Amino acid sequence: MDTVSVPSLKDLTIENITENVHAINSQCSDQRLKFLLERTVSHLHDLARETRLTTDEWMATLLFLTRVGQISSDVRQEFILLSDVLGLSLLVDSIDHPKPENSTEGTVLGPFHTHEAEHSHNGGSISQDADGEPLLVVCTVKDVDGNPISGAKVDVWETDSKGFYDVQHADRTGPDGRAVLTSDSVGNFWFKAILPVPYPIPHDGPVGGLLKKLNRHPYRPSHMHFMFDKSGYDPLITALYLKNDPYESTDAVFGVKQSLIVEVGKVDDKDQAEKYGVKTGTSLITYDFVLVTDEAARKLRRSKAEEAMNSQGRKVRFIDDLPVPDVD
Amino acid sequence: MDTVSVPSLKDLTIENITENVHAINSQCSDQRLKFLLERTVSHLHDLARETRLTTDEWMATLLFLTRVGQISSDVRQEFILLSDVLGLSLLVDSIDHPKPENSTEGTVLGPFHTHEAEHSHNGGSISQDADGEPLLVVCTVKDVDGNPISGAKVDVWETDSKGFYDVQHADRTGPDGRAVLTSDSVGNFWFKAILPVPYPIPHDGPVGGLLKKLNRHPYRPSHMHFMFDKSGYDPLITALYLKNDPYESTDAVFGVKQSLIVEVGKVDDKDQAEKYGVKTGTSLITYDFVLVTDEAARKLRRSKAEEAMNSQGRKVRFIDDLPVPDVD
Repeated sequence: MDTVSVPSLKDLTIENITENVHAINSQCSDQRLKFLLERTVSHLHDLARETRLTTDEWMATLLFLTRVGQISSDVRQEFILLSDVLGLSLLVDSIDHPKPENSTEGTVLGPFHTHEAEHSHNGGSISQDADGEPLLVVCTVKDVDGNPISGAKVDVWETDSKGFYDVQHADRTGPDGRAVLTSDSVGNFWFKAILPVPYPIPHDGPVGGLLKKLNRHPYRPSHMHFMFDKSGYDPLITALYLKNDPYESTDAVFGVKQSLIVEVGKVDDKDQAEKYGVKTGTSLITYDFVLVTDEAARKLRRSKAEEAMNSQGRKVRFIDDLPVPDVD
Repeated sequence: MDTVSVPSLKDLTIENITENVHAINSQCSDQRLKFLLERTVSHLHDLARETRLTTDEWMATLLFLTRVGQISSDVRQEFILLSDVLGLSLLVDSIDHPKPENSTEGTVLGPFHTHEAEHSHNGGSISQDADGEPLLVVCTVKDVDGNPISGAKVDVWETDSKGFYDVQHADRTGPDGRAVLTSDSVGNFWFKAILPVPYPIPHDGPVGGLLKKLNRHPYRPSHMHFMFDKSGYDPLITALYLKNDPYESTDAVFGVKQSLIVEVGKVDDKDQAEKYGVKTGTSLITYDFVLVTDEAARKLRRSKAEEAMNSQGRKVRFIDDLPVPDVD
């Protein structure tokens, strides 16, 4: 740890408190944490100064954040929801997982991914909901040069036909509407599911209250989540959205991208129906996912970071490819 | 509510997501909330962009905030503590309660004020702790012209001799180390207490963990809290700090002001001892508090807000003396 000189922290005012908080926090030996804290404190202090934030408003904010924490549980993450509705989740994903033009775009993870999904074989059904409209999903996963990627772990999750994830049912007995698949030797994976439906994000808590005050609806358009994990490739968190959903252009969490919108087709060929073990006429979604290598993602992330730092005129150096101030 | 035109929220990127979140939030009919949200979203998005915040860092932040909410309870407020150690509490108090030069300065409320203190008469003892060093506190409360203020409600609270507030004891049976007094007809109030001691803020939770990572100690210098409430006067939240405390210039929550530091004296006069019902040689603190009228505080708050807005070149109008953007 560098020895830092901390001034006497006394008689702090609107004008000098920020630099003094920075001074005492600069004792931190983790350069990245120090940078994150420095920028966080600067922004929060500027926010208070430029809005002339009142004691009552700030206390209401602290109590709001307390409620956001307290309603969270093993099966509900209200802070992720808050991040989602403020556009932060989409923004952070865009920064951390930049995508070359010919690869699949990412989108919000949302608060409903779990680690308890069962491993499923290709062709298996991920949903037990008999009220859902049967759906066949047939996909490929390739690299940007079109080479199939085999052995990719594919996490898939969706709601039931009423718009609820398994963890939202208090009486659930185990995972449902989710599975972990593996792409086969030629990069294919397929499974049976139900046709996604639009649904409101949980809006009986503080985030729902905020949306109401903002005159915003809590709905997400029909979609199915996908998360890809394969050694050597940048993790891809994404989703497919159904074309012509009423909430297609007003997603409460800003996740929709044109390239992720799919048209629902039908299994109209008898051979195809037989091959996948479904009835003809079953709804069908197909999609070709394209992963980016770790190396390509790293380079793109780094070059975009350097570009952003340069455009701000900020003198930085990089530790583990992440910017910290260059104080020399 | 004004009708606002919300663009199609699709294909949002690092570059355009902020303006789109603003667009949908602009449906809010509360002008002040809309302004606060607009600035909050701008600052949080800028923070993510300029630090190139990673998914892992953001998730760690959300889980940290969740823990801050979850450790909070009726008798512990970890979000206030977080606000305190980031200098936000002191800053917001300074903005909302500006003080003319000849009045008593404010400082942090802290998380340990409660509403259960008993009303005490002048001369009463606020502490039951027999291990504490006896202390007599003799004060006046006046306006800026030196006129006594009678009937001011004075909330006083301090820790026990071990540095813990009553609510930090799981086995407590009622309030201790706190009282609500009333200034008499000539603006005096006095009470018996114990000599304050330095103590660490609660540091077994997430905020303590953060301080540790920042190589910061969690101590507050010895002090006693005071809160004044009198119709027609701006509420004063302040504290008195003991001179020569080892943490005088490194208060973990940035609360110390030179004008609030007091030298501990002794009751050395037999008549004085008799008058207040204490032994000669008892430790003594005296202080003259000066309150600002509502009207003077309001004017000063407003003129400082206008000054700040002008220096930012921000075009604003005021609603209830609080700035909102002037969009005409």
